[in-house]
Amino acid sequence: MRILITSGGTSEKIDDVRAITNHSSGKLGKAIAESFAKEDVVIDLITTRNAVKPEGKTIHFHLIDSTADLERTLKDLMTVNTYDAVIHSMAVSDFTPESSVTLEDLESAIAKEPADLPKALVDIANERTEKKISSDTDHLVVVLKKNPKIISLIKNLQPKTILVGFKLLVDVPMIELLNVAKASLEKNHADFILANDLAEIRDEKHHGYLINKQHKVKEAHTKTEIAELIKEEVMKLEEVK
Amino acid sequence: MRILITSGGTSEKIDDVRAITNHSSGKLGKAIAESFAKEDVVIDLITTRNAVKPEGKTIHFHLIDSTADLERTLKDLMTVNTYDAVIHSMAVSDFTPESSVTLEDLESAIAKEPADLPKALVDIANERTEKKISSDTDHLVVVLKKNPKIISLIKNLQPKTILVGFKLLVDVPMIELLNVAKASLEKNHADFILANDLAEIRDEKHHGYLINKQHKVKEAHTKTEIAELIKEEVMKLEEVK
Repeated sequence: MRILITSGGTSEKIDDVRAITNHSSGKLGKAIAESFAKEDVVIDLITTRNAVKPEGKTIHFHLIDSTADLERTLKDLMTVNTYDAVIHSMAVSDFTPESSVTLEDLESAIAKEPADLPKALVDIANERTEKKISSDTDHLVVVLKKNPKIISLIKNLQPKTILVGFKLLVDVPMIELLNVAKASLEKNHADFILANDLAEIRDEKHHGYLINKQHKVKEAHTKTEIAELIKEEVMKLEEVK
Repeated sequence: MRILITSGGTSEKIDDVRAITNHSSGKLGKAIAESFAKEDVVIDLITTRNAVKPEGKTIHFHLIDSTADLERTLKDLMTVNTYDAVIHSMAVSDFTPESSVTLEDLESAIAKEPADLPKALVDIANERTEKKISSDTDHLVVVLKKNPKIISLIKNLQPKTILVGFKLLVDVPMIELLNVAKASLEKNHADFILANDLAEIRDEKHHGYLINKQHKVKEAHTKTEIAELIKEEVMKLEEVK
């Protein structure tokens, strides 16, 4: 059995010294990788420099920074290997910086009433020659553009792989969390979604709901429990395929 | 002898899952701390979770995330302890997120021609109830406001301490780097500024210029050399004080 796991959080450059990062310790991804490694499953792990690293001699590491890196690495790996399952636990930035300008730049752009304001700001940013944005302004304006949704690529690349997606919300009612997870499951043709709420994650305590295609929900309360639950459910589905 | 070192890079929250981070491995701060620890100097080290940690039994750690945390911790420590020197090598974010809105929000705010656009955007952001910004928009606009300059606080708190500041630029001519460092030295009443250029930093290779109040410049070519140079110059100045 060969699987692909993504873990950690992406980081999107603003300039040569600043970036927008998605918080993720990589601890859950580590637990999942170690859980599969115990079964001698061959694992390709796409992760980041700062994420904690799992141990296991069947784990192959692929380090990335940004969402664009992730997309490239994922496509490369899914072109050369066939995966029985893809477990996409990485916290991927939904947006990437497109332009950074001063408030004065923004106001002068607005005064010209451009048809496409984001494009006008990109032009202003491109005219600037410094590689590090000057701190000589009271307000800085960073415009971000939407990143492609990485999870939606996976079933296009390998329709037969078992896809486990993740949905993290912050302090929402359980019913909302499950509904958002169900919508993500359907939209991305996932086999499972692990739904969790940042308000219910603290150290090893980690409350998660694993939802399958039949909308059955199983619960887990720690990172180790979540990792074991995902492994069991993926291996069960793999057997009956 | 007791000194205060800051090391690593700050991280400024955009929302509960995203932050703007300043790149800094903490490797130079680690080298500096270890260099002073060899001389049995007592060290308070303000650093971040992700920064590499120095070893030394005279080092006391103080972990922070944001520039606001840094300001609080630095003021607290400089109130209770007297430092012979403060070595401020942390990469501090010049800006912190003030509001995050969609492009549509920005455009509707502009249409109302507010006297204070940043304030109007703060009001819009405050009306939003979700704790994680929805990804359901093509462009996100993050407005950042200027942070207080931490380095300028140090000599106000302890005029007699020896202050070592850092200036990092990206791919500029050497003469510009030295001029910017000189300006920072005077503005912040620093005793030394370590000037360096990101284009000349790669792994252990790290080109730095240490400028003193008499504008004399000494050069170093690795992190270890920079750390030793700073230690020697600080201890020499401490002796004649």
